[in-house]
Amino acid sequence: MTRSTTTDTRSIVFKPQQLISNERSKSKLIADQINTFLEDNPESQQITHQLTDEIVNDPILKTDTDYYDLTKAQEREITAKKISRLSIYMEKDIKTARNHFKDTDLIQKLQADENGELPELTNKDLAFFDKRLSLIGNIDPQLSTRVGVHLGLFGNCIKGNGTPQQIKYWLQTRGAVMLKGIYGCFAMTELGHGSNVANLQTKAIYNLQNDTFTIVTPDLTATKWWIGGAASSATHSVVYARLIVKGTDYGVKTFVVPLRDLSTFQLLPGVIIGDIGKKMGRDGIDNGWIQFKNVIIPREFMLSRFAKVIPNDTKTDVTVKIDKNLDSISGYSALLSGRVNMVMDSFRFGSKFVTVATRYAVGRQQFKSENSPDETQLIDYPLHQYRVLPQLAIVYLIAPAAHNLMKTYYSTLDELYAATSSNNRDPKALKKVSHKLKNLFISSASLKATNTWLVASLIDELRQSCGGHGYSQYNGFGKGYNDWVVQCTWEGDNNILSLTSAKSILKKFADASTKGKFNADLDSDSFHYLDPMFLQRVYTNQLTASLDDDNMESYYEAWSIMLVQLLIHVGKTIQATKAFDKITKLLVLIAKFHAIHTMLKVYYEKLNCSDVSFIKDNATKETMWNVYKLFSVYFIDKHSGEFQQFGVFKSKDISNIIQPRLFNLLSIIRKDCIKLTDAFELPDEMLNAPIGYFDGDIYHNYFNEVLKNNPPEKDGPGVPPYYETLTKMLNRGYEFDARLGGAMNLETLEKLK
Amino acid sequence: MTRSTTTDTRSIVFKPQQLISNERSKSKLIADQINTFLEDNPESQQITHQLTDEIVNDPILKTDTDYYDLTKAQEREITAKKISRLSIYMEKDIKTARNHFKDTDLIQKLQADENGELPELTNKDLAFFDKRLSLIGNIDPQLSTRVGVHLGLFGNCIKGNGTPQQIKYWLQTRGAVMLKGIYGCFAMTELGHGSNVANLQTKAIYNLQNDTFTIVTPDLTATKWWIGGAASSATHSVVYARLIVKGTDYGVKTFVVPLRDLSTFQLLPGVIIGDIGKKMGRDGIDNGWIQFKNVIIPREFMLSRFAKVIPNDTKTDVTVKIDKNLDSISGYSALLSGRVNMVMDSFRFGSKFVTVATRYAVGRQQFKSENSPDETQLIDYPLHQYRVLPQLAIVYLIAPAAHNLMKTYYSTLDELYAATSSNNRDPKALKKVSHKLKNLFISSASLKATNTWLVASLIDELRQSCGGHGYSQYNGFGKGYNDWVVQCTWEGDNNILSLTSAKSILKKFADASTKGKFNADLDSDSFHYLDPMFLQRVYTNQLTASLDDDNMESYYEAWSIMLVQLLIHVGKTIQATKAFDKITKLLVLIAKFHAIHTMLKVYYEKLNCSDVSFIKDNATKETMWNVYKLFSVYFIDKHSGEFQQFGVFKSKDISNIIQPRLFNLLSIIRKDCIKLTDAFELPDEMLNAPIGYFDGDIYHNYFNEVLKNNPPEKDGPGVPPYYETLTKMLNRGYEFDARLGGAMNLETLEKLK
Repeated sequence: MTRSTTTDTRSIVFKPQQLISNERSKSKLIADQINTFLEDNPESQQITHQLTDEIVNDPILKTDTDYYDLTKAQEREITAKKISRLSIYMEKDIKTARNHFKDTDLIQKLQADENGELPELTNKDLAFFDKRLSLIGNIDPQLSTRVGVHLGLFGNCIKGNGTPQQIKYWLQTRGAVMLKGIYGCFAMTELGHGSNVANLQTKAIYNLQNDTFTIVTPDLTATKWWIGGAASSATHSVVYARLIVKGTDYGVKTFVVPLRDLSTFQLLPGVIIGDIGKKMGRDGIDNGWIQFKNVIIPREFMLSRFAKVIPNDTKTDVTVKIDKNLDSISGYSALLSGRVNMVMDSFRFGSKFVTVATRYAVGRQQFKSENSPDETQLIDYPLHQYRVLPQLAIVYLIAPAAHNLMKTYYSTLDELYAATSSNNRDPKALKKVSHKLKNLFISSASLKATNTWLVASLIDELRQSCGGHGYSQYNGFGKGYNDWVVQCTWEGDNNILSLTSAKSILKKFADASTKGKFNADLDSDSFHYLDPMFLQRVYTNQLTASLDDDNMESYYEAWSIMLVQLLIHVGKTIQATKAFDKITKLLVLIAKFHAIHTMLKVYYEKLNCSDVSFIKDNATKETMWNVYKLFSVYFIDKHSGEFQQFGVFKSKDISNIIQPRLFNLLSIIRKDCIKLTDAFELPDEMLNAPIGYFDGDIYHNYFNEVLKNNPPEKDGPGVPPYYETLTKMLNRGYEFDARLGGAMNLETLEKLK
Repeated sequence: MTRSTTTDTRSIVFKPQQLISNERSKSKLIADQINTFLEDNPESQQITHQLTDEIVNDPILKTDTDYYDLTKAQEREITAKKISRLSIYMEKDIKTARNHFKDTDLIQKLQADENGELPELTNKDLAFFDKRLSLIGNIDPQLSTRVGVHLGLFGNCIKGNGTPQQIKYWLQTRGAVMLKGIYGCFAMTELGHGSNVANLQTKAIYNLQNDTFTIVTPDLTATKWWIGGAASSATHSVVYARLIVKGTDYGVKTFVVPLRDLSTFQLLPGVIIGDIGKKMGRDGIDNGWIQFKNVIIPREFMLSRFAKVIPNDTKTDVTVKIDKNLDSISGYSALLSGRVNMVMDSFRFGSKFVTVATRYAVGRQQFKSENSPDETQLIDYPLHQYRVLPQLAIVYLIAPAAHNLMKTYYSTLDELYAATSSNNRDPKALKKVSHKLKNLFISSASLKATNTWLVASLIDELRQSCGGHGYSQYNGFGKGYNDWVVQCTWEGDNNILSLTSAKSILKKFADASTKGKFNADLDSDSFHYLDPMFLQRVYTNQLTASLDDDNMESYYEAWSIMLVQLLIHVGKTIQATKAFDKITKLLVLIAKFHAIHTMLKVYYEKLNCSDVSFIKDNATKETMWNVYKLFSVYFIDKHSGEFQQFGVFKSKDISNIIQPRLFNLLSIIRKDCIKLTDAFELPDEMLNAPIGYFDGDIYHNYFNEVLKNNPPEKDGPGVPPYYETLTKMLNRGYEFDARLGGAMNLETLEKLK
């Protein structure tokens, strides 16, 4: 009874395929236009499809449902094989970017290019591979992380803190950026310090006599901890350590420290490494701990873009030169790319589970109403619509913000690189780029925190919406959740990120409201609600929140007003109580509301301009607007407490406008939900969850995958490996009395008197 | 550097032990009095400690951190060994309950007792073992589930639906209840039907010619699914199947169906069983699927307490006798014990993670304020207090409600059994017990749904509060979460349970408000807010919500009023829109608010009466009241949206009363947080999470457990098993061009023209 043909088609629950295809034929949406919108533009859409197609068909990179049965050891080894496979794609992608496939070997020339005959490798050369890696993260997050630590963290730390010469040497000449020569890890976090980077305890002590550094782990809590790749992959590490020169502590700087012999992979003297072992998820990553016992490295291995140790000519003394301003920023810049990528991950990872849960909700029937012959589809229950469809809206709203953030990230870093590479730096350019960089910190922090949290609850909520079948590992929710939630903690804990970004927003608000300071040039985009003119209109109640369908802006403007009112309240509370601490809970809300506001505004501006929305069809566009409205209304309802508390909406508005509109929008969007999830254009191989495959044949697909991974014949007619244990127990006699200290008959006991 | 002695005590982050012991010496609370309160009374407290002590020291039952590294296959086998071990404890516990250890073998006599010389085995005889099992669930949930399916589901299904003779035969004579003779599973859920039990598709067709039933799985979606124990342990099953007699479908009834040969464990003819395979958690449970190919069982294997198939004397015809009323109730009664136990699990499981996270929050320091030499303890950040301490309050408030529910469950079932066993049933007694049973359904459903949800988010929230270390499997959060969340789905999906209980509450409300109907005798306890007098006072605004510290009742009465206002709103909406569906989101809230209200009221009544609170010390009692207040205020703030929307509190109350009081309570309770978690009296062996052990030596305990499970020496100086893969990749030359279809020099290409 494992094949379709053996199923009784008169069965009352045998319509999923039909139900789902009905939805497809009924909906008039043009999914491909939506997909272009979600992928930002036709070019990037085309690349996404091409790379996805390569990934899910690659014999080594593809994942199947047996992926869910792998042990930690298997995951580790398979991930290593996949990394090795990716190194070839890396070469291909660089050659594609440079359009160089014939004659000389580009890689060879780049590595040998001492005199700079070729343009140096830049982010543009890696664009294809970065996207490939991001897409791989959608089927195998631990793989993209394990490579991401090397390219993203190790690589970006060198890019952000190294001199041009250091960058070229480690990344290009040594081949790191081509997944060649050396493999890097990122030794920032310590057992005793995570968030408080400035207080890390590992020491780099300068030795004048031989112009070197000694790297030292002073004690247990200074042990480098959670270091991805350290346990078994990394040959080199960037180490965050306190720069100690002539007894003076100059704070935490970055150093390249070799860990392993390149050929034997044996640890170098003084390097002690252990395995962190089992984690909640991502066991394919070999996280390790590192302790340094007086490891000596040349002074030149210190990354010296903004901080330099300079011995005098006679090598008898040494000076330390630090570019305070930029040094402080750059320290964290390595984490930026991770945060930016996590917003994109939120879109892609979320889209998988929304697709699966929506198809299940349409194909699954349970309970019938009196006057119906069939059981009702889950999606037709308003409660179920409320559980599933807002999650779809969330994923839709993340997409444009994610693409925007990615572009801003690259342009800002290029600017920073340019502004800090030239010998005679232009202070105005520096001022501008550091302002942009600070804005990038705010937006990446608030969007990373908010969206990784949203997707964590999305996966959980949607798993529950699939009932018991959501608990089967083969439908991906369990592993997906376990792999995902670390995103709420690493690269900056979500609460800390929310607080720091909220504090910066509060600072901007204080400047705008008290000093009328506002940088129209750089802040109009993300912080338009801090424009003193706007603030004035809110103060004077010229502007009040309303959801006006003739004015789509009103759906994000309600959030602008909410943000201002919240900032006013927080400001007052601080003035009154002087206790900054007491309002930290509200600061987390400011960061969340700012992120929600950003997503709405970016989506609005994209959809509102057909040149960039690429949505020509009107019916499709209207639905896209409904998704936008649902997102706004859903979160207003979720936060109706704050909206009422700060007078943005009255309680009757919640009852008479917000909640009715919420359920009305749900019933409208429900009509197109299958097309809206088809629009993600995710192949089954990427979903890797049989209850969510495209054909909608839920029960057969699911049953067959379970069977494939657990063949009933394996242990004959169901005889388990440990059946002796059970039969022995069930067929036991009365040992407890005979042998195990229970009763003995009185006669015997009599004798023992 | 793996041992305490090697640590530099000058290290700035080396105070956890000291910090935690300081808290202990500073707090004046009497933890043991609190423990008595949480364990309900001195007797049950003493038993809890005794059984816990036996469990965590049993060489087979105890768990260590290596538990977190087990594979599915290992978990399955070890769990079987533990079950076998438990069967001996079972005999001991029955003998303890009957105080019979000498002379005749009690078990032997019970099994052989044809003529009822001994009193039959009842729940009282199993009380010790039930508690033992519930406590084991705190260190090894999959073990307690795997036994719970046999005793709780299989056993209770027979108790609830079998005749006295059938109950005695299967459970006592055959030995099932002593984990002997047969091992049962519970075949209710099907691939196509979970919640909608009434529409299950498996058939039991009566055969007149030989007075038997044929059990048939009509098609794939009727496959029994998720059946715990089926894959490899169960010899018998209770099967939920449609009773078909002479072509008439009498609906779903229950049947005992043998599955395996008792000695060889081979499947019996016609029984097809497969393994469900990998799950999100609890892989030690052998969930399976079952298909029946015309399996024949004697008519007498149908459980016939409320539904009977009676052939006439000549065996030429047959009549079906069904006790409609009770039959419908009993169908689900088997799930009741599970729900009741899950409320107790919520208390116990929650207490573990609260203990771990609180100790970590006190011992962990991060960031320092200018004027302090040391970094600040996490627990001193108000945001961290907000993240951790309300979770502690939740666990405290669950405890008394859980004990109450458990007592009500046993007393109600005893009444039901008595009322339905006698041949001439007293209709008044039946009416009363069925009313009690319905109330039990409401309270168990709302408390199960609400608390399993609360504990799921508790684990997640507290894991995040431990930062990266919370993501290490060795600190228990990951596996704990994965094992826990299935509780939100099984034994009744939380949303469905919330809806059904809310609908019953709504019905009671309609009766009370429109017809003035209220059963003061049976409903005053849990539903006092539906007393027409009370409703009147709310309607007429004689009663408004306030939080009055001279009137502790006010902290739950605010919720009584909230519930009434919500019920009024829902009632109006239904009248106005006639659309029951539109308000399902609010129905879920009714169930949640009812559960919150119940927990507050039960806690209030216990703490308010020193005879049952057992808390003599005044300082301790005051803190217990603060915990109670925190619970109420925390959830009022969380649901400030509804409290404002329905006018229970004004927006200024939220700003001026609720939120300030919330943060004030947090800062007060923070002072005693270590004592409050010590009061759970959980041994380290039960926490099994090194960052949370009693001595507070966070970093050594954690590091040493990681080291024990991942000895660095294992692969020599860090050489991973798959290092060849990596070295080959890193040391590769330029294969891409030479072999892998990259560039070739122009000369060669020239030749190929």
